[in-house]
Amino acid sequence: MADIDLTQLPTRSPASARKAATKRANKKLRQELVELQDRLYADGRHSVLIILQGMDASGKDGLIRRVFSGINPQGVRVYAFKEPTENELAHDFLWRIHQQTPARGMMQVFNRSQYEDVLITRVDGLIDDAEARRRFTAINNFEKLLQQAGTTVLKFYLHVSEEEQLERLQERITDPDKRWKYEAGDEKKASQRAAYRAVYEDVFRHCSPATCPWHIVPADQNWYKAHFVAQTLRDTLVALDLQYPTTKVKKK
Amino acid sequence: MADIDLTQLPTRSPASARKAATKRANKKLRQELVELQDRLYADGRHSVLIILQGMDASGKDGLIRRVFSGINPQGVRVYAFKEPTENELAHDFLWRIHQQTPARGMMQVFNRSQYEDVLITRVDGLIDDAEARRRFTAINNFEKLLQQAGTTVLKFYLHVSEEEQLERLQERITDPDKRWKYEAGDEKKASQRAAYRAVYEDVFRHCSPATCPWHIVPADQNWYKAHFVAQTLRDTLVALDLQYPTTKVKKK
Repeated sequence: MADIDLTQLPTRSPASARKAATKRANKKLRQELVELQDRLYADGRHSVLIILQGMDASGKDGLIRRVFSGINPQGVRVYAFKEPTENELAHDFLWRIHQQTPARGMMQVFNRSQYEDVLITRVDGLIDDAEARRRFTAINNFEKLLQQAGTTVLKFYLHVSEEEQLERLQERITDPDKRWKYEAGDEKKASQRAAYRAVYEDVFRHCSPATCPWHIVPADQNWYKAHFVAQTLRDTLVALDLQYPTTKVKKK
Repeated sequence: MADIDLTQLPTRSPASARKAATKRANKKLRQELVELQDRLYADGRHSVLIILQGMDASGKDGLIRRVFSGINPQGVRVYAFKEPTENELAHDFLWRIHQQTPARGMMQVFNRSQYEDVLITRVDGLIDDAEARRRFTAINNFEKLLQQAGTTVLKFYLHVSEEEQLERLQERITDPDKRWKYEAGDEKKASQRAAYRAVYEDVFRHCSPATCPWHIVPADQNWYKAHFVAQTLRDTLVALDLQYPTTKVKKK
């Protein structure tokens, strides 16, 4: 993948996109996803792993609600990776990640992922560049292993502007409904925006094989961000050519 | 690793080895392992994964009893991989393996392992050569990941002669104490000895990086087999230079 300069990539929808029309399209996409998930489950040969990354307040939680609500929860699981536990830290960094990969027939959403282990760890100076490179290789190998076992890996980076990010973080303080999301480190993380940008760009540089690219999602507007992800997921599922197995029940 | 021809490798101890003296040495080695496990646990920086492979009746169970009895079970775990479950088969072949890797401070014994997925599956024609090669690469990457996280991986192949193997399988029928080990497929697997030898040799060819070689253990005699493994494990632990952390309790 050519080097990505995040400052040159849009955080808002293309000028041609219309909010009302896009929201109608999203409704239709959600219906399609309900049907496609059912096929994925019945077909039983493939699985899909959706990896969501983005800076603080880039809207990962809202995106999950917007795209995946309505899908049969028997076929889709969401796992939010938090700070690793002591036992998780006593293993290699992919140990806890691997446990959450989807079985055939399933969709799995990672709210944060293995990439945190080459992002926050780097910004906080917990690992050096050499270790980051070893981890990039390990991540690429890991995703290849999953792909070879029938898992499609979709990686999304939710790209928000600094203005939008600061506004959302402010809302966590002023909006009573959002106050529960406020965390002590919020201000500090926002102030580290440049450092996060650098390590994200390094991730895109090293972990974007042709078969497993990053999708950079303009994420300032919720309706457009949801559209982008839902459409990519829909197109991916359609391309799998999922089939209901022919029935084994004989006709009388 | 140079190509290995199992028919050229000994299944019995070197002529110089004496049974009585070796058994006394084994007793001493077990004492050392008790002490070294305690250090491994206290030191908390390393872990050890001991992989045991071998044809049917090569004596994996007996080896585990002989080498690891007496070690504090808080610091050593044994996991015997059986035929995969439906849920395990719905994931990549390393999914269930990765869950059982040791935390820092621990010794983990695999009674059979990820290598079954390039052995029995190949003999039974469940995977083709191309898939076997993909899995060899995946296994090498996986073991490297573990090593980079502080795990020493020790791989042992218990090498028994055809005569010894057949005699032990026969005992499962005639010896009341061993009858519980008899399985319906035993005769068939013994008759596939040549096929198993070929796929084992292919494993040694492709999965023996310099940092993670196979140890081929002459395994016809229980006392020698135990000696070989205990000594290798002891030497490995000694080389880790395990230290009791200096106490943080201040002297009065």
